[in-house]
Amino acid sequence: MTRLTVTPLHGLPEIRPGDDLATLIRGAARAEHEEVRDGDIVVIAQKIVSKSEGRIVHLADVTPGERAREMAAESGKDARQIEVVLSECAKIVRWERGILICETRHGFVCANAGVDRSNAGAPDTVVLLPVDPDASATRLRDAFAKAAGATVAVVVTDTFGRAWREGHTNIAIGIAGLPALKRYVGQRDPEGYELRVTEIAVADEIAGAAELVMGKLDRCPVAIVRGFTLDEPAETAQEYVRPADRDLFR
Amino acid sequence: MTRLTVTPLHGLPEIRPGDDLATLIRGAARAEHEEVRDGDIVVIAQKIVSKSEGRIVHLADVTPGERAREMAAESGKDARQIEVVLSECAKIVRWERGILICETRHGFVCANAGVDRSNAGAPDTVVLLPVDPDASATRLRDAFAKAAGATVAVVVTDTFGRAWREGHTNIAIGIAGLPALKRYVGQRDPEGYELRVTEIAVADEIAGAAELVMGKLDRCPVAIVRGFTLDEPAETAQEYVRPADRDLFR
Repeated sequence: MTRLTVTPLHGLPEIRPGDDLATLIRGAARAEHEEVRDGDIVVIAQKIVSKSEGRIVHLADVTPGERAREMAAESGKDARQIEVVLSECAKIVRWERGILICETRHGFVCANAGVDRSNAGAPDTVVLLPVDPDASATRLRDAFAKAAGATVAVVVTDTFGRAWREGHTNIAIGIAGLPALKRYVGQRDPEGYELRVTEIAVADEIAGAAELVMGKLDRCPVAIVRGFTLDEPAETAQEYVRPADRDLFR
Repeated sequence: MTRLTVTPLHGLPEIRPGDDLATLIRGAARAEHEEVRDGDIVVIAQKIVSKSEGRIVHLADVTPGERAREMAAESGKDARQIEVVLSECAKIVRWERGILICETRHGFVCANAGVDRSNAGAPDTVVLLPVDPDASATRLRDAFAKAAGATVAVVVTDTFGRAWREGHTNIAIGIAGLPALKRYVGQRDPEGYELRVTEIAVADEIAGAAELVMGKLDRCPVAIVRGFTLDEPAETAQEYVRPADRDLFR
């Protein structure tokens, strides 16, 4: 019986630009008598990845443009923060009732282009998504190989809302060493019918499983998922980006 | 360190109307030297819940109406199956390129109102969603109390697609003994900022975690999630239904 375990890692310090996350995570694991091992999936919240990469903006340094000032007046929000969101936004999908749903340059659709003021580590500061979360995941994967001698997979996550459904879930925005999708295309059930669901977003489900042990307030931005094996080629989170021309809801 | 474990249960027989799922699941657990225990979350795929409840339609018994025949001609699909989908559909959200996105009577938005021909257990047969998946979950929870003397939570799941994002994920359509949402509303980070993400869809994440050990083809429709505690009042999956007037994408 293959059992999956999901273990939270506590005790990481506040992350600063330039910090070596792989070494810090390995240290946090060891402090809890845990090791980062071959085959582990290390799930890391985007916020600490972004902080380590310096993807931080101090709002005092931002001069909002006209559009941001208009939107701020309309919504009662901080014009400087809206300016940062607009600069991260490739396309506005919806702007209604103060809710700004963006398509990011990565192709992800989410609120505020992933720009977030909470848990930024300093006042009047916002954290942006990594420029290339798949590249971040790959760098971290390589760093674990170096620091721990372990071949791991890495999933960089953020917590996104959904259409139609209340509540946010943790999903994968960057992946290394793991497929994004488990494919059943063309496979048939015992009666010979093709399966209805043909692609499962496994890295998104791994991100969600990790969230269950992570916490927003108790500073636990890392979890290790163990026991998941999928013998398919590694992919990036770009597999999740549905082209606009195939999307019924954009 | 609180660790979450997710254990698949194999060895269930093909489920028939009237089957006592709780007893069968307990038996499958015991066959693998496992016990259903207090505090466990038993995650069960909708398909076997529906089958045990007789939510099965033989297409030979279906006479498609005019609308179903038109849609079948347009899409090349089986008019009888479309007729069943329409009968399960409270509102058509999209009908484009042969893809039918429905709002079900429960308020869920998904393809084909959850009607599925694959893994139906017999040819020319479709399986519908349970009439009331929360009630199904509650009945199963009560049955585990009786059969195993254990106070468990139950999550009934299905695999839905998402807007904007490729791949399906397993989500909760019925819940008993567990909150649907973990709420951070009004909670503040160390700098005093209100958290951006205020409601996490934990039962959806539990459903996704379970899917990672379940399989579509190897008949493993049950998993036990252990180690998750949330001291908040139990809710139903109706918490996930976003009212149409608060929805930007319907």
